[in-house]
Amino acid sequence: MARTMNFNAGPATLPLPALERARDELLDFAGSGMSVMEHSHRGKEYEAVHDEALSLLRELLAVPASHEILLLQGGASMQFALVPMSFLPQGGSADYVVTGAWSAKGESEARKWATIVGARVSVAATSHECAFTRAVPPEEAKLDPAAAYVHWTSNETIHGVQYLDLPRFGDRPQICDMSSDFLWRKFDVAPFAMIYGGAQKNIGPSGVTVVVAAKSFIEQGRKDLPSILQYRAHAEARSLLNTPPTFGVYLVRNVLAWLKGIGGLDAIERRNREKAAVLYTAIDADAAFYRCPVEKGSRSVMNVVFRLPSEDLEKRFVDEAKKHGMVGLKGHRSVGGIRVSLYNAVEPAWVTALAGFMKDFRNRNG
Amino acid sequence: MARTMNFNAGPATLPLPALERARDELLDFAGSGMSVMEHSHRGKEYEAVHDEALSLLRELLAVPASHEILLLQGGASMQFALVPMSFLPQGGSADYVVTGAWSAKGESEARKWATIVGARVSVAATSHECAFTRAVPPEEAKLDPAAAYVHWTSNETIHGVQYLDLPRFGDRPQICDMSSDFLWRKFDVAPFAMIYGGAQKNIGPSGVTVVVAAKSFIEQGRKDLPSILQYRAHAEARSLLNTPPTFGVYLVRNVLAWLKGIGGLDAIERRNREKAAVLYTAIDADAAFYRCPVEKGSRSVMNVVFRLPSEDLEKRFVDEAKKHGMVGLKGHRSVGGIRVSLYNAVEPAWVTALAGFMKDFRNRNG
Repeated sequence: MARTMNFNAGPATLPLPALERARDELLDFAGSGMSVMEHSHRGKEYEAVHDEALSLLRELLAVPASHEILLLQGGASMQFALVPMSFLPQGGSADYVVTGAWSAKGESEARKWATIVGARVSVAATSHECAFTRAVPPEEAKLDPAAAYVHWTSNETIHGVQYLDLPRFGDRPQICDMSSDFLWRKFDVAPFAMIYGGAQKNIGPSGVTVVVAAKSFIEQGRKDLPSILQYRAHAEARSLLNTPPTFGVYLVRNVLAWLKGIGGLDAIERRNREKAAVLYTAIDADAAFYRCPVEKGSRSVMNVVFRLPSEDLEKRFVDEAKKHGMVGLKGHRSVGGIRVSLYNAVEPAWVTALAGFMKDFRNRNG
Repeated sequence: MARTMNFNAGPATLPLPALERARDELLDFAGSGMSVMEHSHRGKEYEAVHDEALSLLRELLAVPASHEILLLQGGASMQFALVPMSFLPQGGSADYVVTGAWSAKGESEARKWATIVGARVSVAATSHECAFTRAVPPEEAKLDPAAAYVHWTSNETIHGVQYLDLPRFGDRPQICDMSSDFLWRKFDVAPFAMIYGGAQKNIGPSGVTVVVAAKSFIEQGRKDLPSILQYRAHAEARSLLNTPPTFGVYLVRNVLAWLKGIGGLDAIERRNREKAAVLYTAIDADAAFYRCPVEKGSRSVMNVVFRLPSEDLEKRFVDEAKKHGMVGLKGHRSVGGIRVSLYNAVEPAWVTALAGFMKDFRNRNG
């Protein structure tokens, strides 16, 4: 069976070896005569998987001992609620940097909680006025020196805008939504108070959320919330406060083991940058036909967006690509156009095939 | 490969055909050249699975049009927080019936939220004084006529106590945690304002939570919370407010399709009652050796708990059973003893084998 060339924005394509491993042992995990999803989350078989997922994350991301790694549920959307609930106290304020649909969502959800407790949410910087086509640098941000934290989104999946250099917005605690920016390259975790992301891009299937947070920051979180809403409670329970999504965590383990096996973040970063270079070169080579609206310095390595001369051509592009075995190319419904997601498990050969198709399509329609 | 006889309390054993189906199409879902977990949650392939899971739930449980079905994340523990957040207003009160570890947890988590907003949580009835060995009937409950809702737990997984007749506690809205009581028998959904349960007993893998709630009740929920914490928002989005745990929902679909195929709730209820009868008969036949602490009228059909004359014998029982291919028999660490969970996918033959083992064990050790 030929693998479909899958450029979905998430849930995204997963590494074939991780899936094959899941298939091969689906009915019989480690000779136990049961699926891993039938094991108790308190039994040694699952706990070994859980601990391996956590230690692979720590190793691959080089997470320092100062930081905790949590495996939660609910995706980034749940974090949009939990972050202000834990860290935005009555009378306090938080800064949000808004550079696309996801950071805007994070900001508007935080504002709801702020209204409930009587706190303030400020937009410290935004690229709204240029239709989210650039990552606003810290120099342009109006930061509140008393903010409880600064929240920003390192890669905007819908708008294809990325902070390639992972800057720092002032000296208050930095909380970063890295959902579509996690685990494709090396970066220094230490400066962040908290980073989080849904697994369904580079880490595994949907239904698992990875949070990495400074232990000292977790300790500052509000203590009177229901336990499940407190990072502290999850940290104390090693992410076994309640029944975790065991099969999801198992798949995360498989993906991480694959990533380590092919050389870790150094190897995958090289591969990802090459894929993005192939695609942006194909766009720029036909700049009169393919137009990437994003400023060059903010072009995402993970989600490449571009337009064609008309919506009709865009529709034809998506339809014809599908006939060539390439799916997931339609831009998000809120912005239109084409979006190509280049997550870790996207094969370089798929990108080469797409670039070839783009050239051919332009020759036939340009 | 022989299937292990798995009596886990959850995550629990799953029907083999549902797992085999998952294995067979893990790499290629519906001829798409991709795993179902690699499909977009906005694509027609996954949406068909999502809608099928919802419609099978509606059909199997005979959920009336007055009620919404939601597929959420976070397990019952998340519901312990979301229920009071949505339905317990400032100055209001809620009644909690406490008949075991899980209802006690629901009550203590609700109390946290009540303290934050300035509301009251009352224990309307409890079997704490008899160590949670009976389901307290509504006649003994001190109900607050002004309560926003009454919360109770129809089956206590740890204590093996079940409301076999699903009573009604007064005339205020009834919210019932049915995590280990869902989908093993027919019951009338209509009288409930809300029922919920983690999937990992009878419905599927961990990481999916099923909520069934009256639309009119959902509408009464607090409207200013972050969206992800509002039932309303999930209902409006057909449980696609954010990325759902797609593979978990797919497995739920497989389990539901299996259940329908073997005859639905009528067939499975008969089978479940027979399994429980075999086991309780084995216990009562050796009442001097095996002792079920639960009052006869409250004995759970799903989770059968019993003690042996000593902890040493209990340990030996668990160890020897394991050598015979039976696992998941150790009682919860908080109460000790033996626990046998008899969820839908537990084969009657396993229960017969266990009853045989019990007789043999008693003959050798009694």
